[in-house]
Amino acid sequence: MELYTSDRLAAARRAAAEAGLDALLIGPSADLRYLTGYDAHALERLTLLVLPADGDATLIVPRLERPAAEASPAESVGVRLVDHEDGTDPYGIVQDLLGDRAKTVGLGDRMWAEQVLALRDALPDAAQALAGAVLRGLRLRKTPAEVEALRRAGRAIDAVHERMGEWLRPGRTEAEVAADIAAGIREAGHATVEFTIVAAGPNGASPHHGVSDRVIVAGEPVVVDIGGAMPDGYCSDSTRVYCVGEPPAEFAAYYAVLHEAQRAAVAAVRPGVTAESVDAAARDLIAGAGFGPQFLHRTGHGIGLDGHEDPYIVAGNATALEPGMAFSIEPGIYLAGRHGARIEDIVVCTDDGVERLNTIDTELVIL
Amino acid sequence: MELYTSDRLAAARRAAAEAGLDALLIGPSADLRYLTGYDAHALERLTLLVLPADGDATLIVPRLERPAAEASPAESVGVRLVDHEDGTDPYGIVQDLLGDRAKTVGLGDRMWAEQVLALRDALPDAAQALAGAVLRGLRLRKTPAEVEALRRAGRAIDAVHERMGEWLRPGRTEAEVAADIAAGIREAGHATVEFTIVAAGPNGASPHHGVSDRVIVAGEPVVVDIGGAMPDGYCSDSTRVYCVGEPPAEFAAYYAVLHEAQRAAVAAVRPGVTAESVDAAARDLIAGAGFGPQFLHRTGHGIGLDGHEDPYIVAGNATALEPGMAFSIEPGIYLAGRHGARIEDIVVCTDDGVERLNTIDTELVIL
Repeated sequence: MELYTSDRLAAARRAAAEAGLDALLIGPSADLRYLTGYDAHALERLTLLVLPADGDATLIVPRLERPAAEASPAESVGVRLVDHEDGTDPYGIVQDLLGDRAKTVGLGDRMWAEQVLALRDALPDAAQALAGAVLRGLRLRKTPAEVEALRRAGRAIDAVHERMGEWLRPGRTEAEVAADIAAGIREAGHATVEFTIVAAGPNGASPHHGVSDRVIVAGEPVVVDIGGAMPDGYCSDSTRVYCVGEPPAEFAAYYAVLHEAQRAAVAAVRPGVTAESVDAAARDLIAGAGFGPQFLHRTGHGIGLDGHEDPYIVAGNATALEPGMAFSIEPGIYLAGRHGARIEDIVVCTDDGVERLNTIDTELVIL
Repeated sequence: MELYTSDRLAAARRAAAEAGLDALLIGPSADLRYLTGYDAHALERLTLLVLPADGDATLIVPRLERPAAEASPAESVGVRLVDHEDGTDPYGIVQDLLGDRAKTVGLGDRMWAEQVLALRDALPDAAQALAGAVLRGLRLRKTPAEVEALRRAGRAIDAVHERMGEWLRPGRTEAEVAADIAAGIREAGHATVEFTIVAAGPNGASPHHGVSDRVIVAGEPVVVDIGGAMPDGYCSDSTRVYCVGEPPAEFAAYYAVLHEAQRAAVAAVRPGVTAESVDAAARDLIAGAGFGPQFLHRTGHGIGLDGHEDPYIVAGNATALEPGMAFSIEPGIYLAGRHGARIEDIVVCTDDGVERLNTIDTELVIL
């Protein structure tokens, strides 16, 4: 199973044409990596994939980056490389490639404003739209090779959680534990560490707490939300809650609610079910137990080459799930000033149900 | 010496007004951190500083991120926080803040296209320009507190280079050495590892080679270019060349040329000298020795909260250096297919000359 093939460029061309876009213009991003396999650095020097709906793909790269682009799968999937030197104007290459036949161009959603405005000047007759609407539709459904990549990422982060007893001890700070986790994330085969949230006691009540110098105390719950990107670019993301010794009774009670809600949301996943109904499956149980206002965020986000991508598992998203869609299921309950909990697995919608890509237990882990 | 004070917002307002911008709109970026001290995650949820040239600063944040924004210096430098919930439209807040009084807005140079286009829709009567032209002028000259921050970053990366003998040995792969360096970068006090280039033998001839599974061989030069960001956000970046055992005579000969060129460029730095003449100081010596075509890139880049920022030390940049400007001096000589070398220090222009912020020796290090 090859991850990178020319199928993606062909599908992007077709989707662009259907969306009325004459060309896609994609800078360094997960979109670029998805289409070409090239993991470009975002630099002030222009790197830009020019993909006309009716023509061949060209990747404009700084001369310095050409060896890296040549070492990537880009040429093997049918992309021609053109380089530019420091001090020359790379936007002239875009004009030469597109001339005045592009009436509407689709820009990568995360292209920098300096390039958006430079492209507006270089192609003054071309209306600018976002390429994301086109590319999201492709990236949303993972191929079997992509699901296998996410499965590998899931196994890798599971292996890190399984080592938590080596690192998480009373008397250590969140930051010390996080540094060990970061090393563990790499040792488990990730190429990059994307985040290491270690949130002890009251810090666990802040969903996006990072780490601090707070010293971990016995008996306080610790939310550990960690992830990285594998060498092929696919991401991991998993949250478990740990407690050294027995947690407060109040905490154990709402953790049981959360545990049931997370399992219910996972079980709700199958083709045809909407994203928002998966959110509701978790939320209704949590709200029914009286913790509705303490579940502060959506239930999940898609994952692939980006850590956060479509589909979002949130009220208002009526997208019907399809086989190959991969996303997190991560409800949480947060008691401000006291403690909090979140349980997160990555799952993929299968032909007839769901597969958890994180396969370790979701019970509270007593260390 | 406080790094973050309200002076920066006041200076940005004045500079915006002088540039004809009615407001600056700045998303998560080094610009945002520079202005407010807030190190925001770049997310699909909108985080945006709205800074009218004639009014108070407001930072729009996702509700989930509010605790992180509150924990930052933002409020202490005079920024008001406004949050928005998942599922609501944060661009309405921008409209409410600016109404129709903004005729031209300056967007952060690295704002994502999805936000650039959403802001175009939200403020259809406002012309969009880049804020960078305004902010670069401020960020270009470091305050004494910033120079001290860069000095700390320089000392930290120097300490990593001084440990290279622990890690760099024949028989190990570039990737293994890089993993140890990454741990060392953190141990030396950096908050993040930004890059770890370990380029052995012919890989050293590719200026932007990262790491590979190439096994390091005795007697081959290894280019090690490493950097990270300190907890206060200021960056380090330093390159040295190592050799286990004696290098080839041909290499030693051109390393001596490079060494002289790097010192000449450092010595050329003082107020009033142009950026391009510092480039020429290195380039003329290298070209004079017959290696002009093998010096493939500019001599340097500015550094601060971004690893690459103004001023660029490159032909064509007639900017006159001023006290407080900080940048790399990193000429290189690359013999394709054989080996290469680069020597890089960060320096700051002082009132009457130059200070090297990397203070370790620049000779070839024989391990």
